[in-house]
Amino acid sequence: MSHLDEIQQWLVEKHLDIAYISDFRNIAYFTGFESDPIERVLALFIFPDHEPFIFAPALEVESVKKVGWKYPVYGYLDHENPYALIKEHIDKINKNPENWAIEKGNLTVERYESIKNQYPNAKFIGDLTPIIEKEKLIKTPDEIKKLEIAGQWADFAFETGFNALKKNLSEQDIVAEIQYALMKKGIMHMSFDTIIKSGKNAADPHGAPTKDLIQPHEMVLFDLGVVYDGYISDATRTVAFGEIDDKQKDIYKVCLEAQLAAQDAVKPGIPASKLDEIARNIIDKAGYGEYFIHRLGHGMGQSEHEFPSIMEGNDMELKPGMCFSIEPGIYIPGFAGVRIEDCVHVTENGCKPFTHTSKDLKIIPIK
Amino acid sequence: MSHLDEIQQWLVEKHLDIAYISDFRNIAYFTGFESDPIERVLALFIFPDHEPFIFAPALEVESVKKVGWKYPVYGYLDHENPYALIKEHIDKINKNPENWAIEKGNLTVERYESIKNQYPNAKFIGDLTPIIEKEKLIKTPDEIKKLEIAGQWADFAFETGFNALKKNLSEQDIVAEIQYALMKKGIMHMSFDTIIKSGKNAADPHGAPTKDLIQPHEMVLFDLGVVYDGYISDATRTVAFGEIDDKQKDIYKVCLEAQLAAQDAVKPGIPASKLDEIARNIIDKAGYGEYFIHRLGHGMGQSEHEFPSIMEGNDMELKPGMCFSIEPGIYIPGFAGVRIEDCVHVTENGCKPFTHTSKDLKIIPIK
Repeated sequence: MSHLDEIQQWLVEKHLDIAYISDFRNIAYFTGFESDPIERVLALFIFPDHEPFIFAPALEVESVKKVGWKYPVYGYLDHENPYALIKEHIDKINKNPENWAIEKGNLTVERYESIKNQYPNAKFIGDLTPIIEKEKLIKTPDEIKKLEIAGQWADFAFETGFNALKKNLSEQDIVAEIQYALMKKGIMHMSFDTIIKSGKNAADPHGAPTKDLIQPHEMVLFDLGVVYDGYISDATRTVAFGEIDDKQKDIYKVCLEAQLAAQDAVKPGIPASKLDEIARNIIDKAGYGEYFIHRLGHGMGQSEHEFPSIMEGNDMELKPGMCFSIEPGIYIPGFAGVRIEDCVHVTENGCKPFTHTSKDLKIIPIK
Repeated sequence: MSHLDEIQQWLVEKHLDIAYISDFRNIAYFTGFESDPIERVLALFIFPDHEPFIFAPALEVESVKKVGWKYPVYGYLDHENPYALIKEHIDKINKNPENWAIEKGNLTVERYESIKNQYPNAKFIGDLTPIIEKEKLIKTPDEIKKLEIAGQWADFAFETGFNALKKNLSEQDIVAEIQYALMKKGIMHMSFDTIIKSGKNAADPHGAPTKDLIQPHEMVLFDLGVVYDGYISDATRTVAFGEIDDKQKDIYKVCLEAQLAAQDAVKPGIPASKLDEIARNIIDKAGYGEYFIHRLGHGMGQSEHEFPSIMEGNDMELKPGMCFSIEPGIYIPGFAGVRIEDCVHVTENGCKPFTHTSKDLKIIPIK
């Protein structure tokens, strides 16, 4: 069953007349057409017993057709009232849709009121946000393939970054080298701002790369990912720039042990929270529990803000096709920070990571 | 009067009890604290007769204090219900705010319903979206200063791009060179995806840079800008890669004439639409009217999606401090495209551009 068919079936089951998809990433998910319309209106309407249609800015109509969308697409010009036009197109299908489903987590109050103005008797009783989130939980083989390719580019980015590391370069300089190398290969978008943090700076899991020069005998944290055909990668490696001391080595060893243990434990049926617990117990027992200050992982796919969340309290059972990060971290203020992360997809009997850069402690010679 | 004071005064005038600012860019505008909270809740509450407060994810609280925010900031943890906490903080100030102002163009239905759940008797009668848009129309001297610095970096980017142009490089390669040079200078964010388009590709004002090699005797369009301290630049230059033919030169000349005429006409009191008309008349008279397929310009400041819109139908009178683009274009399908753009701010008797790269036709030697 296609992604679209699932929504159509849900509308039938819930006796809803129409679904209004407003999030451009979700429109990409259902239609293959990805474009951020910013302040313009881009919408997908799905019906229980009729073909769907896309409503788009006029200048996007040709692009929608190019991606192979086989249903109608209607355009509007900047001076036209998009919601009056939307009503005209809906009227051709259902004169008075009463029971609506909208994306409550995305639709603005302004647009909600615009629809209400066109349909004063409409009831907005269906919330698509959790339905779509649930549908996105399980990736298809085609999606997994894109995530794997995005992962390969993250591995390329690590290699580039490790090779670039040398004296008198700043964190920002390394970001520049990585993104330059990717762009030269045609990878034009990172999935989020590349994070390079060295020494003490890495003890703050937030904040941006600085102009600080990366010092010998520090650890350097790389957290990065790219966008490939609408799907992302996200991975973290922490390396040593020259020899490091025993305490640095120790937090690396503990963090790696936690990461591997959690990754090894992934299989269908295990609760998401259990993975967090496994990793956290290892870090706790080693005495670093207070320095692991975030959840173990997050779902990912089109972005790094999907489900399942790998944390205490989320007892959702893992299933094949779920994709998420496993990223324990140990952040000791004023000293150093380590995080090691792979994103994986759950398989029939375990999981497979999307990134393959070695997680053994890598000591990069000072040059 | 500060940006915040203006909202406070508006609340008093409209007899509103509370304003809920939800757009992170608008929070930056009023508080100086800029952070995209993605799915977490970041909010600013303003009262007619009491000091405002920021409500933020716990991990952001220290950062809010660091930017010099002198009023309260309250945090919440991921497992807490943010809207229940928000109510507790509001209750300390006003037990039962009845008349609310929200940002209808930003607040999602989900968050709107969360507030309604806490305040079942609330009336959401004020819409902050147009009020803030209007306030942002006039930039302060401090904002103009940031826009000028962002403009200087755009000029640097043009110089880098022009110098990089040589045979066997693709559009994407030139993007890579520009963004690399900026990152090496610490400018880590572009204000939008850099557009480099050559030859026929430039005839489509939309779409991304390709792997197509830039050919000698083509025109090459550069549309780019950076983010500097929360404010952007946005400028376009079209150059010739080697000698070009008379028709290419002609559309360049006409486009430049239109750009200069519109820019020369800017002064307080003139309607925005008049500038569009001036530029369009020149292009029409030269016989290229059908190829100028977008409005003349858009407002800008924190992003390129502000007001005033410089187009037919917008008769808003320009005032000192308004900032916008002037960017006529001529796009001949299958042949070439030219666009020339500066963003300007209106002064007491004219305007000043933020970018200063020469607009005379530049012929870059083939190498």
